[in-house]
Amino acid sequence: MNYLEALNNRYSVKKFDPTRIVEPEKLYQILEAARLSASSMGLQPYKIYIVGSEPVKQQLIPAFYNPSQISTCSHLIVITSKKHLEKEYLDGYLRHITEVRGTPAEQLLRFKANIEGFTKDQNFVQQHWAEKQSYIALANLMFAAALEDVDTCPMEGFRADALGDVLMLDREKEQVSVTLALGYRAADDAFQTLKKVRKPTEKLFKFI
Amino acid sequence: MNYLEALNNRYSVKKFDPTRIVEPEKLYQILEAARLSASSMGLQPYKIYIVGSEPVKQQLIPAFYNPSQISTCSHLIVITSKKHLEKEYLDGYLRHITEVRGTPAEQLLRFKANIEGFTKDQNFVQQHWAEKQSYIALANLMFAAALEDVDTCPMEGFRADALGDVLMLDREKEQVSVTLALGYRAADDAFQTLKKVRKPTEKLFKFI
Repeated sequence: MNYLEALNNRYSVKKFDPTRIVEPEKLYQILEAARLSASSMGLQPYKIYIVGSEPVKQQLIPAFYNPSQISTCSHLIVITSKKHLEKEYLDGYLRHITEVRGTPAEQLLRFKANIEGFTKDQNFVQQHWAEKQSYIALANLMFAAALEDVDTCPMEGFRADALGDVLMLDREKEQVSVTLALGYRAADDAFQTLKKVRKPTEKLFKFI
Repeated sequence: MNYLEALNNRYSVKKFDPTRIVEPEKLYQILEAARLSASSMGLQPYKIYIVGSEPVKQQLIPAFYNPSQISTCSHLIVITSKKHLEKEYLDGYLRHITEVRGTPAEQLLRFKANIEGFTKDQNFVQQHWAEKQSYIALANLMFAAALEDVDTCPMEGFRADALGDVLMLDREKEQVSVTLALGYRAADDAFQTLKKVRKPTEKLFKFI
């Protein structure tokens, strides 16, 4: 399938077919697209929870304003983002670069100073910066799922505290950015027949 | 090309081949992927500027902390996001839904109330919400470009005021979210030979 056909075929599913589970091999490919996501300075300041357990999904239903996706989806993905860029995190990242690329630590000092510089800028807001990076991962998940013919619904309408309780998040360190239900559309989900509403080219783009 | 191969092949280009221009048909396909991006409530609270003009690109160089991408890329994309969700914008969006889908305006009243409700919530920060949506479009551009074998470099290191001056943005209404250079990697861009550094699966994902 051409990728534009896949994106045209995608819509935010309101009701999934609860009898269909996303095949593990497809799920891992889709997740790999998120792992390969670009992020600012490569810092990947987020974590991705994949809830396939039926009892846990049931527990999560009250955390959402619209429960129909959670109660019918195959997997619920919860993306959290880092509240702080701790020294240990940054040091671990730099060590990882050295391990993977063989770059001597001394050669990374300027890169480290750059990261420390921009994170100390008065206009830098850690949580928003980390959330934005997590949305790139979200988009890669949706795009890859569309290519795999797996349906999705991204959701921002959740009670973060309730989600945090069930997933036992470390609230000092992470916050829920966004969530994504995965599965296969139910045959009677009426939204699949609606035409896609997008801004026309001339309103969205300006060529200079 | 398999999409994971394409994402693995992607890296943030530091120097493009200045003699190669992205073919218009490829550019339009890539932009169409951004136009089809999902966004919260479908509101697409952003605009996408595509700078192909050489003199304008030259003018934009001082707006970036790292000029090498701007001076060598084929096209520079600047994504701005809306600072306010004006009544007219929302009304225009609802009218557009009615035009495209034939949904009677009365049937959209609850949807409208929902949008007004969440945008008035005390935890809602318009600018961050809009920026996050624009990052989904950014990610779709990078993903589609990778599939088209077009190289990219996303950049957050810019002086928004300087960009706004050159592009004559309406600063009351829009702010620069993020930028993306498009083109083809230069043969001597050393970064293309470096191994990709990404968190291992067990650190990024938690299966529940």
